[in-house]
Amino acid sequence: MNPPYYAVIFTSVRTKVEDDYNAMSNKMLDLAQQQDGFLGVESARSDIGITVSYWKSLEAIKQWKHHLDHLDAQRKGISKWYDKYTVRICLVEKEYSFQK
Amino acid sequence: MNPPYYAVIFTSVRTKVEDDYNAMSNKMLDLAQQQDGFLGVESARSDIGITVSYWKSLEAIKQWKHHLDHLDAQRKGISKWYDKYTVRICLVEKEYSFQK
Repeated sequence: MNPPYYAVIFTSVRTKVEDDYNAMSNKMLDLAQQQDGFLGVESARSDIGITVSYWKSLEAIKQWKHHLDHLDAQRKGISKWYDKYTVRICLVEKEYSFQK
Repeated sequence: MNPPYYAVIFTSVRTKVEDDYNAMSNKMLDLAQQQDGFLGVESARSDIGITVSYWKSLEAIKQWKHHLDHLDAQRKGISKWYDKYTVRICLVEKEYSFQK
């Protein structure tokens, strides 16, 4: 991807509640990829989870934040799945890669 | 942390080579925390690894990139530990959190 574009860094600590977490997580990944302005997503979890999604514009991020199914997932995230989380909206200014 | 500040998103796929990877990884985490302008770091690994470090300025990021011990770690990373990686330099424009 060629900067400038946007990244949303979502870091989280999960509760011990499973209760459809994986199903909802997969559904949100699928749905995010269908949104206008979506560029990609990467995710990993150890003690904490880090999901970074990439977007063409702040407007695309805002649209996704207010998507009805995503709002429902956010509510359940707060009530059930997350002890805490932080969302950071970032402008990606530079990018470089190495590949064997 | 109060925006604006910078984030470096480092995403990687590891080789199967261990050979001091954990020792070097821990050493770099310790060393990064001693640098001027360092604000914090978060890390997780599943299929891929994601490490996000936070910095006061682009100058602080540049200084850390060129730290001699870090350059040595970068060389070994390319030759031994990583199949591929991407580094993204980002301006954090907005941040919000939830905590139970």
